[in-house]
Amino acid sequence: MIYTRAAVTLADLAERLGCRLEGDGALEITGVAGLEDAGPGDVTFLANPKYASKLPGTRASAVIVDESVLSAPCARLRTPQPYLAFAEAVATLGPPGPRVHGISPLAAIDPSAEIGPDVGIAPFAVVGARARIGARTSIGPHAVVGPDSTVGEDCVIHAHVSIRERVAVGSRVIMQDGAVVGSDGFGFARRPDGTHQKIPQVGRVAIEDDVEIGAQSAVDRPAVGETRIAAGTKIDNLVQIAHGVKIGRRALLAAQSGVAGSTVLEDDVVLAGQAGVTGHVRLGRGAIVGAKSAVTKDIDAGTHVVGIPAIEEKAWRDATVLLRRLPQLRDELRDLEARLSALESKSPR
Amino acid sequence: MIYTRAAVTLADLAERLGCRLEGDGALEITGVAGLEDAGPGDVTFLANPKYASKLPGTRASAVIVDESVLSAPCARLRTPQPYLAFAEAVATLGPPGPRVHGISPLAAIDPSAEIGPDVGIAPFAVVGARARIGARTSIGPHAVVGPDSTVGEDCVIHAHVSIRERVAVGSRVIMQDGAVVGSDGFGFARRPDGTHQKIPQVGRVAIEDDVEIGAQSAVDRPAVGETRIAAGTKIDNLVQIAHGVKIGRRALLAAQSGVAGSTVLEDDVVLAGQAGVTGHVRLGRGAIVGAKSAVTKDIDAGTHVVGIPAIEEKAWRDATVLLRRLPQLRDELRDLEARLSALESKSPR
Amino acid sequence: MIYTRAAVTLADLAERLGCRLEGDGALEITGVAGLEDAGPGDVTFLANPKYASKLPGTRASAVIVDESVLSAPCARLRTPQPYLAFAEAVATLGPPGPRVHGISPLAAIDPSAEIGPDVGIAPFAVVGARARIGARTSIGPHAVVGPDSTVGEDCVIHAHVSIRERVAVGSRVIMQDGAVVGSDGFGFARRPDGTHQKIPQVGRVAIEDDVEIGAQSAVDRPAVGETRIAAGTKIDNLVQIAHGVKIGRRALLAAQSGVAGSTVLEDDVVLAGQAGVTGHVRLGRGAIVGAKSAVTKDIDAGTHVVGIPAIEEKAWRDATVLLRRLPQLRDELRDLEARLSALESKSPR
Repeated sequence: MIYTRAAVTLADLAERLGCRLEGDGALEITGVAGLEDAGPGDVTFLANPKYASKLPGTRASAVIVDESVLSAPCARLRTPQPYLAFAEAVATLGPPGPRVHGISPLAAIDPSAEIGPDVGIAPFAVVGARARIGARTSIGPHAVVGPDSTVGEDCVIHAHVSIRERVAVGSRVIMQDGAVVGSDGFGFARRPDGTHQKIPQVGRVAIEDDVEIGAQSAVDRPAVGETRIAAGTKIDNLVQIAHGVKIGRRALLAAQSGVAGSTVLEDDVVLAGQAGVTGHVRLGRGAIVGAKSAVTKDIDAGTHVVGIPAIEEKAWRDATVLLRRLPQLRDELRDLEARLSALESKSPR
Repeated sequence: MIYTRAAVTLADLAERLGCRLEGDGALEITGVAGLEDAGPGDVTFLANPKYASKLPGTRASAVIVDESVLSAPCARLRTPQPYLAFAEAVATLGPPGPRVHGISPLAAIDPSAEIGPDVGIAPFAVVGARARIGARTSIGPHAVVGPDSTVGEDCVIHAHVSIRERVAVGSRVIMQDGAVVGSDGFGFARRPDGTHQKIPQVGRVAIEDDVEIGAQSAVDRPAVGETRIAAGTKIDNLVQIAHGVKIGRRALLAAQSGVAGSTVLEDDVVLAGQAGVTGHVRLGRGAIVGAKSAVTKDIDAGTHVVGIPAIEEKAWRDATVLLRRLPQLRDELRDLEARLSALESKSPR
Repeated sequence: MIYTRAAVTLADLAERLGCRLEGDGALEITGVAGLEDAGPGDVTFLANPKYASKLPGTRASAVIVDESVLSAPCARLRTPQPYLAFAEAVATLGPPGPRVHGISPLAAIDPSAEIGPDVGIAPFAVVGARARIGARTSIGPHAVVGPDSTVGEDCVIHAHVSIRERVAVGSRVIMQDGAVVGSDGFGFARRPDGTHQKIPQVGRVAIEDDVEIGAQSAVDRPAVGETRIAAGTKIDNLVQIAHGVKIGRRALLAAQSGVAGSTVLEDDVVLAGQAGVTGHVRLGRGAIVGAKSAVTKDIDAGTHVVGIPAIEEKAWRDATVLLRRLPQLRDELRDLEARLSALESKSPR
């Protein structure tokens, strides 16, 4: 067992997760764990067929599976969406989330700020002038909500987050430790003497509802206009979002990816880890960019691109295979040359 | 209109920006915005010809342009440097920058620290023993200026910046939220048993005048000697500067780029996004490294390199084109082989 | 001279470093510096043969060298491990490390926390409920040790570090400024409507003894189970360790590298700068991944891989060389085609 909040019966759990139960509903379930770590009293899950071979060996009391799984050494909770049910099981059986409760007397809250009901504010948090914090939002230690910024309801803002001035954050937004929203975009004009004149970056940033921003990620503000991340988009750790970028709904940006200035990612775009997108381009709805790839131009909706520069995944795969066969191609070329020379020497001049 | 500080007449604005006015100087200008977002009362600009097609549709009251632009649907502010004038317009018409005013009683300032006139220090900032802060510098919430460190005049140090011990920072330096200067370099000596002995990293770090360092970027200190970033260099977010690196004047390092230990970047070097430079090499003055590229050796002044490993941009472009034609080359090779076999079968033995 | 703590005689220093002295043991040594920066009173070192040409020009009073160095313009401290002895010299002669002394009245320490003897806690640090801090550990300004977390003995936790709830940190661990341990893994289940359901990330994180974690690096916690970094592993700045990753002992992860979810790095693995490893794979003991490379599958122990996707270093080198020769291969192909056409035209039909 990994952790526990309160025991539930397997029948209760099945009902809460919307699963059909196969097994003894009176079993007490006290925790949730992975297939290999689970023990008696735990519920586990199988969502990725890659791990099916580990199911017969599990010591869990119950497993969440879809209908394709024929047998298991324990009770089954059947659902077409095992991974979603697992998420609910963790929420039910795991420890409570790390929300701050109450308003610490050690926080620095400007008298002009508006704080909603049941907001939690940790020690040494700073809430600036005219900032507004929505109901039930949690502000972690040393987090900063800048002047004239708003944070919606039911947000979790972790330690050391910096939300700069005039930033609008929606509801149910989560920001992991150290995320920065509203830092100055990287905008300079070259003076005739070669030095760089800073363009003041005083535009707006909007983070819509249900967005998550990972640890140490940075979302820059533009000189004019706004940077916007639309509802339901999830951003991993150490991601760079430059000034004036617009990201659509439900996009997924994996760790250490980056998007340069003024680029548009439409809804449902996916950037895999360490991918990069140049400035002033548009990625169509549902486009997928492979890990480590570099997008240098507009990408059509639904396209899967890979490589540096990124091309369609199929073309990239073909080129990569041939790249490895280059020594063989070279040898074939040499061989042809030898055969040709032999023929030439026999040929009449 | 995006934001406003105080209305100015167009004639006054033209004078302040050093532009020649074409149009009604009595027009009231209240804001600055992009070509598409601007409305009546706004000044906008056109610096990148890529956006020229948007000029006829702008609703702005005035546009900053150079002499190459023949017509506009509004007043013109003429200058050979539209982007520089735009920077000045934003400074004139935009909201004031986020400087801290006054010294918060909630800051922890060592009694031995020297604080210049008109310095602003936010709540929960920490200024260590014998640290010195120059006139008019702004220290954001939770920023740390370590013992024996100095920060010059007119700097803006944002929230959560960590300036470690014995770091020298010049004047007019800007550090975005979460930047770290003076963290330990990654230096270890392998012991005979395979474990790693830490080399204490106690060297110096110098950040010269007019440098900007982006959010979450890290500048390490060396074991001995110093890490130095020379005057006027601008560093974007999430950039890694390793121990003992020397960066010249006016360099530009885009987001998520990195420079390994003891490497030298001469004046005016440019690293595009996610580029990397190995340790112990030298990039000559004005060298440009393409996005995602990896520099593995010394680079001559003025050279533009791209790729992994990075080679001259022209050579890289040729190889990339051919790489995509590899399937075609292979097919040509197959075809030649077939034709050659046919010839051979007819040839006398 | 770079810095000084207290003068020692060269004879004393030789004894402390375990070196054999060649020269005047009565010389006073007051500092340690690099070969080129060192002056009278300094000890310097030569560990990398690349810098041997700088030895004759050094102005140092003594140099740490192995037996292969025949002569030097100053006293010699002989040892088979010059780099290890240099580490010791810096520790002896450099300024003291940046440990915090005493417990600041400005820190927020939960009454239920257990604080060991001689612990230092800086202003505005936060120690949560039931947290435990071992003897002689230093907690920097604004660092957070979350509820139910433990930090061992003799650790140095720098400014703005965030150790989240239920994290176990061993002894002699160093975390550079802004490091985050225990942030939520990037785990979501897709709902039928295409939106992302967060999987609560409530698993554990364990950081074993003698680990170092660089500035701005992030170590995520998993939904269930744990993320673990084993003893003696060193992690540089801006590194991403995803949920459920296991890293063995004495691994080295250079700056801006990243490891995706559930991947296993066995003992002594090395990731060079900006390298990435995909999820759910295993890198065998001592595997080395080149800079900027992308590992997409399991890697055998002891293998050196490079490239995107990463292949054995030898194969990658061959392919890279040929890639640059592609224009030449294409020309050879064209030439063969011309010769073949000439032959064909002479051949009987």
